[in-house]
Amino acid sequence: MRDITLKQIAETLGISITTVSKALKNYPDVSPKTRKAVLDLAQSLSYTPNSFAVNLRTKESKTIGLIIPEVVHHFFSNVINGIIDEAEKNGYLVIILQSNESLELEKKQVELLMNKRVDGIIMSLSNESNDDQHIKEILRREVPFVMFDKISKLIPCSKVIINDQKAAFNAVEHLIEKGCRKIAHIRGPVNPQNAIDRFLGYKKALEKNHIPFDPKLVYTCKNVTFDEGKEFAEQIAKEHPDVDGIFVITDLVAVGVLAYFNEVNIKIPEQIKVIGFSNWFMSQVITPKLSTVDQPSFEMGVQSFGLLLEEINAKKELHAFKPRTIELETGIIERESTLKK
Amino acid sequence: MRDITLKQIAETLGISITTVSKALKNYPDVSPKTRKAVLDLAQSLSYTPNSFAVNLRTKESKTIGLIIPEVVHHFFSNVINGIIDEAEKNGYLVIILQSNESLELEKKQVELLMNKRVDGIIMSLSNESNDDQHIKEILRREVPFVMFDKISKLIPCSKVIINDQKAAFNAVEHLIEKGCRKIAHIRGPVNPQNAIDRFLGYKKALEKNHIPFDPKLVYTCKNVTFDEGKEFAEQIAKEHPDVDGIFVITDLVAVGVLAYFNEVNIKIPEQIKVIGFSNWFMSQVITPKLSTVDQPSFEMGVQSFGLLLEEINAKKELHAFKPRTIELETGIIERESTLKK
Repeated sequence: MRDITLKQIAETLGISITTVSKALKNYPDVSPKTRKAVLDLAQSLSYTPNSFAVNLRTKESKTIGLIIPEVVHHFFSNVINGIIDEAEKNGYLVIILQSNESLELEKKQVELLMNKRVDGIIMSLSNESNDDQHIKEILRREVPFVMFDKISKLIPCSKVIINDQKAAFNAVEHLIEKGCRKIAHIRGPVNPQNAIDRFLGYKKALEKNHIPFDPKLVYTCKNVTFDEGKEFAEQIAKEHPDVDGIFVITDLVAVGVLAYFNEVNIKIPEQIKVIGFSNWFMSQVITPKLSTVDQPSFEMGVQSFGLLLEEINAKKELHAFKPRTIELETGIIERESTLKK
Repeated sequence: MRDITLKQIAETLGISITTVSKALKNYPDVSPKTRKAVLDLAQSLSYTPNSFAVNLRTKESKTIGLIIPEVVHHFFSNVINGIIDEAEKNGYLVIILQSNESLELEKKQVELLMNKRVDGIIMSLSNESNDDQHIKEILRREVPFVMFDKISKLIPCSKVIINDQKAAFNAVEHLIEKGCRKIAHIRGPVNPQNAIDRFLGYKKALEKNHIPFDPKLVYTCKNVTFDEGKEFAEQIAKEHPDVDGIFVITDLVAVGVLAYFNEVNIKIPEQIKVIGFSNWFMSQVITPKLSTVDQPSFEMGVQSFGLLLEEINAKKELHAFKPRTIELETGIIERESTLKK
């Protein structure tokens, strides 16, 4: 059976479309008898109001857009979970788009979401993003907007972040406390703010502990993969065999580092200690278990949706809304890969 | 600036709304001068046509709905990737909803998607699903519909599956070839068809190889978690210390099994061989590396969207559409956990 319309109900019952519409909305000027007839027929025909038509009137789509660099990623899929969970509680659907770390695709997706008139957009930038025009367009059109994790500091919108610099600082100090004196850093790509901040945290921790900073000990990921971890570990072992600690941009890459050291029988943590970032699930099941920075990813999703909803509601009620930034706490999870032996 | 409307453009230029609308659609009965004025103003004001209004006319939303049990799951996130990739190529947005393995939520989500008038729905059932009423409703309303992985055999719709029984049969024969003679099975929950089929494949492989089937060697997961893997491994070691092989419903649970055996120093593969299912990423980085069944998850997403699009197009052109089932090939990936030693 095709979807049925108000018109069909009206014709079947021999009443006007207006009456059918009013009956469905419980207007008082429809007789109880007529209302019952309409509701019964609507129910028996599985009538559902056309939500697009409803949207034209209320100007709300009850959908929000979410743009993230990739779905198959422990951190992001946990954030998605947090957002979907909270959105569902509030009656919102989430349209998820994946930018595949491509600026071009990201621009197209922002455009698409605005054309679809979503009620708001939540976004984590792709690694390629260094041109903010498409983001500024979101603000110019007054679409409620929240950035999380990979943000642009220049955009005045709500944000949910961790203090990447501080978290990285603590991770490197953890290595120093465990006795490391020559510490390499496998950093993220050049553009993303969180890669920059983690690098700065690394530098600061060295400085504070009077360990000279050596740019040759910094290796830059392009794609942030397991394979890059393996390759950089090999380079470090060959170019700087006296490195005794490595701080790695994220667990996935750190697991690649461990895989290489396991292969060539370099002992972790005895010869080199390794700490990752984000606490991926696999970090607790590999050998040796990986020390890492705990990042509250689910909570990040929950808070992002919360801020977006605040802005959506403020807009609806024509209240002014002042963007806020929520900074979530991180911690060090100590496992085998940094044990003092 | 708020979104602007045709009316505002018309008022600004002192022409009718109809003329503005025709100009934007390049109708020939608008003078080139007027058309240019409209297009220039529309562009300078960042006018975008209201897609909900457009939808009312074309009856297409260019969105599809995807309902899956969980996002944070290696297999499903790869399927999502395949679907999103293919949907984007064809100009469709994907609304992802997560049922959290709950039948109640799943029902609500099917309802929501139909109210949102998506052009089609792709779905993998929750483990709780054993009541098909909400699925039958999708067919009754003639919404294009594809099921993948966790399907219901009773529903006459398009499906993308693997042959779970055959894949499980091959996995268990692999253990037998490697010398196992007393093989336990950690199976999935009672309802999902794929858990049933994998169990049947296990039984058949034993039968064919004249190994008596012992129901006491079958352990049933409730939530299919890492922790359940650890618990069942402990039970198996205590109740049946002579078990020499385990076939596990999925890698996540198998990794839990390995974790327990590592803890208590039971040697894999020397004392017990273990094979998982689905080839999760972590299976190749843990110690020992886990043998598993390769399941083409990305391809499953691509094919699911392909079938859905076929049905959407057939419906649009009022052609009859006959649901099809695509069965994808699987293979055995042999790693350390089943090595013959």
